[in-house]
Amino acid sequence: MAWLRHYRRAWLGGDLAAGLVVGIMVIPQSMAYAMLAGLPVEVGLYASLLPVLGYALFGSSMNLSVGPVAVTGLMTAALLAPLAPIGSGQYLQLAIWLALLSGLMLFVFGLLRLGFLANFLSHPVISGFITGAAILILLSQLPHLLGLSGWPVSPAALLDSWQASNSLVLGMGLLALLWLLYARSLLAAHLRWLGLNESLALLLARLAPILVVVLTVLASLYWDLAARGVPVVGSLPAGLPSLVWSTPDLASLHSLLLPAVLVSLVGFVESVSIAQSLARRKRQSIDANQELLGLGAANIGSGLTGGFAVCGGFSRSMVNIEAGANTPLAGVVAVGVIGLILLTIAPWFAHLPLVVLAVVILVAVTPLIDLLSLKRAWRYDRAEGLTLLATAAGVLLLGIEGGILLGISLAIAAQLWRGSRPHVAVVGRVPDTQYFRNTKRHLVEITPHLLALRIDENIFFANTKAIEQAIHQALSDYPDTQEVLLILSAVNHIDSTGLDMLSELTEGLAERDIRLHLAEVKGPVMDQLAETDWLNQQVGEVFPSTHIAFNTLGSLKRPRQSDAGE
Amino acid sequence: MAWLRHYRRAWLGGDLAAGLVVGIMVIPQSMAYAMLAGLPVEVGLYASLLPVLGYALFGSSMNLSVGPVAVTGLMTAALLAPLAPIGSGQYLQLAIWLALLSGLMLFVFGLLRLGFLANFLSHPVISGFITGAAILILLSQLPHLLGLSGWPVSPAALLDSWQASNSLVLGMGLLALLWLLYARSLLAAHLRWLGLNESLALLLARLAPILVVVLTVLASLYWDLAARGVPVVGSLPAGLPSLVWSTPDLASLHSLLLPAVLVSLVGFVESVSIAQSLARRKRQSIDANQELLGLGAANIGSGLTGGFAVCGGFSRSMVNIEAGANTPLAGVVAVGVIGLILLTIAPWFAHLPLVVLAVVILVAVTPLIDLLSLKRAWRYDRAEGLTLLATAAGVLLLGIEGGILLGISLAIAAQLWRGSRPHVAVVGRVPDTQYFRNTKRHLVEITPHLLALRIDENIFFANTKAIEQAIHQALSDYPDTQEVLLILSAVNHIDSTGLDMLSELTEGLAERDIRLHLAEVKGPVMDQLAETDWLNQQVGEVFPSTHIAFNTLGSLKRPRQSDAGE
Repeated sequence: MAWLRHYRRAWLGGDLAAGLVVGIMVIPQSMAYAMLAGLPVEVGLYASLLPVLGYALFGSSMNLSVGPVAVTGLMTAALLAPLAPIGSGQYLQLAIWLALLSGLMLFVFGLLRLGFLANFLSHPVISGFITGAAILILLSQLPHLLGLSGWPVSPAALLDSWQASNSLVLGMGLLALLWLLYARSLLAAHLRWLGLNESLALLLARLAPILVVVLTVLASLYWDLAARGVPVVGSLPAGLPSLVWSTPDLASLHSLLLPAVLVSLVGFVESVSIAQSLARRKRQSIDANQELLGLGAANIGSGLTGGFAVCGGFSRSMVNIEAGANTPLAGVVAVGVIGLILLTIAPWFAHLPLVVLAVVILVAVTPLIDLLSLKRAWRYDRAEGLTLLATAAGVLLLGIEGGILLGISLAIAAQLWRGSRPHVAVVGRVPDTQYFRNTKRHLVEITPHLLALRIDENIFFANTKAIEQAIHQALSDYPDTQEVLLILSAVNHIDSTGLDMLSELTEGLAERDIRLHLAEVKGPVMDQLAETDWLNQQVGEVFPSTHIAFNTLGSLKRPRQSDAGE
Repeated sequence: MAWLRHYRRAWLGGDLAAGLVVGIMVIPQSMAYAMLAGLPVEVGLYASLLPVLGYALFGSSMNLSVGPVAVTGLMTAALLAPLAPIGSGQYLQLAIWLALLSGLMLFVFGLLRLGFLANFLSHPVISGFITGAAILILLSQLPHLLGLSGWPVSPAALLDSWQASNSLVLGMGLLALLWLLYARSLLAAHLRWLGLNESLALLLARLAPILVVVLTVLASLYWDLAARGVPVVGSLPAGLPSLVWSTPDLASLHSLLLPAVLVSLVGFVESVSIAQSLARRKRQSIDANQELLGLGAANIGSGLTGGFAVCGGFSRSMVNIEAGANTPLAGVVAVGVIGLILLTIAPWFAHLPLVVLAVVILVAVTPLIDLLSLKRAWRYDRAEGLTLLATAAGVLLLGIEGGILLGISLAIAAQLWRGSRPHVAVVGRVPDTQYFRNTKRHLVEITPHLLALRIDENIFFANTKAIEQAIHQALSDYPDTQEVLLILSAVNHIDSTGLDMLSELTEGLAERDIRLHLAEVKGPVMDQLAETDWLNQQVGEVFPSTHIAFNTLGSLKRPRQSDAGE
């Protein structure tokens, strides 16, 4: 709330304009995402009021616009469908409790400063999840475009379905789609060509969906489209939502636990990444724990007023910024606009054909299918490309929970896998310098009785065997070795499995009359090793630099012991 | 089988002696572990025949002795108890299938060369598992010592149980316990004092349990102990097991899948670590994939002859070595000894009091409770100590599966957690040298407009936020910075989440007129970055060494741009 105490008069104009534009722009979106969530459309409007105020009170972003988004709509539908029939009162109640529970979780996580937990979602997992979710959403909306209530359940039903499809709906849907695509791509340029200034043209283009809504509501009334078999919104109560509270039963709470965790996690990651990219534009900064509190308050607010789960939305935040928003006051203005519409013309939306909302969803989510990220991840690292693909496929085939868990598991497995294949280089001195480089990549000098190995990975349970093998391999490549020097400049941690391996290795070398030395041990690693028997009893010397180690050990050739004892 | 082709006559004496001693020594053990597994005692003897030959054919260790061990006995009982009543024919059938299935898995893993998978069990997890399993085994055997059939089910039943306990059983058990403890600790020394040579004294001490078996069988016969309420083995068929095969039904196969994976994993890890410590003594080496084949063949052999799951045993292998075994021929001899006993005197074991087997188990597993490892792990790293403790507690409270899975998850989580808190140091030049050290640990020279940061961790999803924050913190500590130099000598990998962070960071710095440079980028990291937009378009210069970077950038101070644009 610091922004309120330091509010400047110069900010007011921008905030008022942005609030007005966002308030109008999110009307179709909010209804569409409620439909996607399997809820009455007014629930989407309710979720656009108190959440915004809750976020304004606690959030840290100046420009993030919070409300219903496609992903929370999809997650609500996918996670609650197994628990109650869509459209039932129980389903609505579960959706409200899901928002409440997820809000409480986020708020408590914020108080506990657990914002860092979101770091364990890697970019390929996030982008795979979004792509998978976007495809799921597209698939869920295609039947609406044909005026059908759902996908044909069998290939045989396909023909029946096709015949049942309503060409009036399809035609209206395609018209709306063309208009929205035009608005997205060319409308702004054409408006500029008509003489409007750039930002006004951009804003009008952003408001294009509302024109479709108004026109189709009028057409629906004039031609009584509902009587011609065009599915419409149906009924929409006038007035603001009232504050409601009903205590969930234990069984519902239990079945909502995992869904609430997932909604919180995804909503938080989405909001923070949007808030960060907005903040960077204005050189502001985002506090992850503050965001948890803000998003928690927003979801609690949504649940208390009969809304569903919300998070920060990209397109609404972009419009907010483009329309000149300076502070969360813009959001408060938008709430006023939506409230006013609810109090006055909302019942008219009852005549809105559902296909229009389906088209709004289609146009909004198609850009979320992120093939560019897949291409980049794939080119950069196959394992990460596969993680992205598997997460997307997992969301499509195993569902939301399965996809996210699969993605996180694969990202962690890839990380372990990488660590389990360490790079170990035999190094020598670059002639006449103090630099030491891989003998396989550079022309360097070596001393036959001194084997210097640089271990390019933390030494931990997954790679101790591989490192041991690499050292034994190097020893058989350089059979005259009397001194082994391990250069630990790239080792930031040694775990106890690694320590056991090093200790056994040192014993094994001692039996062959070979001594083990260390160089360039990092401070934190040295602190941990300082107390161990290995460093104190088994290791030869610890050198501050490879250069000093080479100078000292290079001149120390000992007469070879006889091998008679073996 | 290479050992057979190069067999030397000199090895024969040792192999014959070791086979004889091991063959006699494992008789009580094998029966005891079958009892622990909830199976008839002869199943333990059957599991000591073909498995040894199977391992001799495929395994790579010269001295590992394979057969029933306490841990496979416990795992069989704990994993199968939920599936069938202990003592039923179905239970026995499941135990045989468990051995077969686990054998097939191990063999196939060996063919696929998946031996490296065992590396993902860290030492704290293994040692926590063994400790937890040993405590479970002790608890399971204590009622036998009192002549009870099981633990009292309630505090009220405790008194009844106590009254029902058989003091004859308790007395015999305590006598046997004292004798075995004496044999373990002092007998060898006393025998040496009587004039026996060291190795003979040690071997006789190792055979002490067989004396208890012989004496108690005789006592049981003479006084008809079974009639006095002393539980005895009961019946024991004479003769060798026959080869049997019954195809498991799909439902059984499905329920045996996870148990078989766990038995395979634990058996393999145990066998390999025993085989490695034996091989080190003789300067031989172990091939993990060969071990998978050997252990797989052993378990298939066990299943085909009505035995249960087997793996390499520590005490039997130690006796094998101490008795002079040179090759797996010793195992073949031991098989002959056990076979001979099965064909002749085995039915006499029907009179053996069960308490003797319980005592054999108690004495064998008590040393497995490994408090020393706990102390070492705890002192070295709290997270590893906790992992060990949690694995042991998990085995006790959640069962075998729960304990192992908890341990593996914690070990991985600890590894990620450590990686998520990277050490980032601001470095400066040690005066008059080419060395660069942490400004907080050393007296070093810095150049005000050049901020050099050494990142001491791989850059990956779990730590990108932390690294970004550390860099921003350093920038606010050194506000005159114009050039940022990232020293990547300890960065062995950058994942795509890390790359995205670096790219955004570079853009953010560029807006503040600060350039980003790199030094000491490792070969493999450079190879991966070479193709990226980040390295090619955004990064300033890439220096081979920090020394060169300091010389170049240190003299490059630019006039400060005005901040009017901000």
